[in-house]
Amino acid sequence: MSRLGYVRRRAPRGAGRRRAEQTIAAVVCESGPRLFSDPYYARLLVACEEALTAKGLPLMLMTATPATASLTAPRLVAGAVDGVLLIGARARHPLTVTLAASGIPVRCVGRPPDDVTLPFVDADNADGGRQVAEHLLLSGRRSIAVIAGPPTLPAARDRLEGFRRTLFDAGITSVPVAYGDFTRSSGAHAAQWLLQRVPNLDAIFVASDLMAAGAIHTLIRAGRKVPDDVAVIGFGDAPIAKSMSPTLTTVRQPVEEMATLAIKLLLAALTEENGPPADSVLPTELVVRESG
Amino acid sequence: MSRLGYVRRRAPRGAGRRRAEQTIAAVVCESGPRLFSDPYYARLLVACEEALTAKGLPLMLMTATPATASLTAPRLVAGAVDGVLLIGARARHPLTVTLAASGIPVRCVGRPPDDVTLPFVDADNADGGRQVAEHLLLSGRRSIAVIAGPPTLPAARDRLEGFRRTLFDAGITSVPVAYGDFTRSSGAHAAQWLLQRVPNLDAIFVASDLMAAGAIHTLIRAGRKVPDDVAVIGFGDAPIAKSMSPTLTTVRQPVEEMATLAIKLLLAALTEENGPPADSVLPTELVVRESG
Repeated sequence: MSRLGYVRRRAPRGAGRRRAEQTIAAVVCESGPRLFSDPYYARLLVACEEALTAKGLPLMLMTATPATASLTAPRLVAGAVDGVLLIGARARHPLTVTLAASGIPVRCVGRPPDDVTLPFVDADNADGGRQVAEHLLLSGRRSIAVIAGPPTLPAARDRLEGFRRTLFDAGITSVPVAYGDFTRSSGAHAAQWLLQRVPNLDAIFVASDLMAAGAIHTLIRAGRKVPDDVAVIGFGDAPIAKSMSPTLTTVRQPVEEMATLAIKLLLAALTEENGPPADSVLPTELVVRESG
Repeated sequence: MSRLGYVRRRAPRGAGRRRAEQTIAAVVCESGPRLFSDPYYARLLVACEEALTAKGLPLMLMTATPATASLTAPRLVAGAVDGVLLIGARARHPLTVTLAASGIPVRCVGRPPDDVTLPFVDADNADGGRQVAEHLLLSGRRSIAVIAGPPTLPAARDRLEGFRRTLFDAGITSVPVAYGDFTRSSGAHAAQWLLQRVPNLDAIFVASDLMAAGAIHTLIRAGRKVPDDVAVIGFGDAPIAKSMSPTLTTVRQPVEEMATLAIKLLLAALTEENGPPADSVLPTELVVRESG
């Protein structure tokens, strides 16, 4: 049957358990240091915790890098956990495949990789990339580069593809790309790499605000004025975006709404109630400040 | 029997379970927003995760404020968790009492409140307070105030008592105290309160670096020079201590060592091996920078 695409529908594990005994785990596909240093996770997990607490459920949090997934997975599938919120699932991540096959209700925050079918909530990353590209084109920028996120992360790919497609449609077919891992230092290094290869660049789209802060630091040290010489646009609208100098033009994503909706989806799956539609993509919005 | 102080020794739950199936939960007695905004927890939990991963165990993280403890407790005592690392236990916190009575191996990071007996690892908070007091006395400060942490938290009480006792022994018997909750804004408000009541103060000992940052902000806005008019000493040696202006004199605590030792203690309890001695208090050290 499974070869024809049919999957046996197992009874939700939580169905036989009272709400007061159910346990929801949020699993972040990241290392501990990144979990605690990127404000995206803080916002997302605080909102998840609030949504669960309102329903009388605590939040249990775990991390799982590809290296530690083999430690995390047995605890999740052994029956102690009734539902999983999977955050930032990546391609070729062993946990993603294990969970998809486990029968445990799983809902993703962030579109899962193409090789896995799991219901998700995401921000419209591709449209965010489109908005940035149109803004840069309208500002007259023409020598445009990208500092992208990890290519295994669908959100990072969507941001890059939405951006590149819009430039392509406008006749800009060559867009240099450097890759970072969403940390500030990776943004600084990527900007250094781009400056060496594209000395005349006049704009960089950076796939996260932390990386954008690192990139701006590199540009200023290299004697470039931001935004006069080089426009820099971030992604995420993190708290630092407003306090940086220059303040950061970026793409706002509805992090709290994503968390609340994903928890609703997951709880509906546990109780077999009709929840909100799966695969929701919430709108993103360009926030224009000083940097570009 | 229990009235005579004897307690029936239950077999550790983990004893019958293979290591690959055991689950350790770190429970932070804090709200989600505080967990993600105070760098102390990031340092501590990243070190816990590293120590556990080295032993082939994942970290499961939960929070429990007095308001949400009733949600967290059933998951911990229902048998899904083999050992608990309890972080920042407070007086009159319902979870502390429940865990102490549960028979689950529990080890604390931070001395538990006096009404609960649980093995712990802690920094020498009282001696940290003593070092700050001696430093201020040697610098000639005489109108000295304190911004303390929550009085229900033993670490906060120890810092205050070590400080006050040293000043008392030096003949300074009146030390105004304002209380904060370790957030930056509570430090700013507490400094405002102290300035109104003790206009001639020349030193403040602040029980956390984040609160010290808030206090310095208030002092500078009130036209006081730090450290010329008012010395400010923090506690914790958080990353911001070095990047503030003026840089912050503070007390370093061995956060990573506390985490590693507490995990060792807990794993030894699970396997009934002889671990390091319980109730370890690790040394703290004054780090003199510009603020006082």
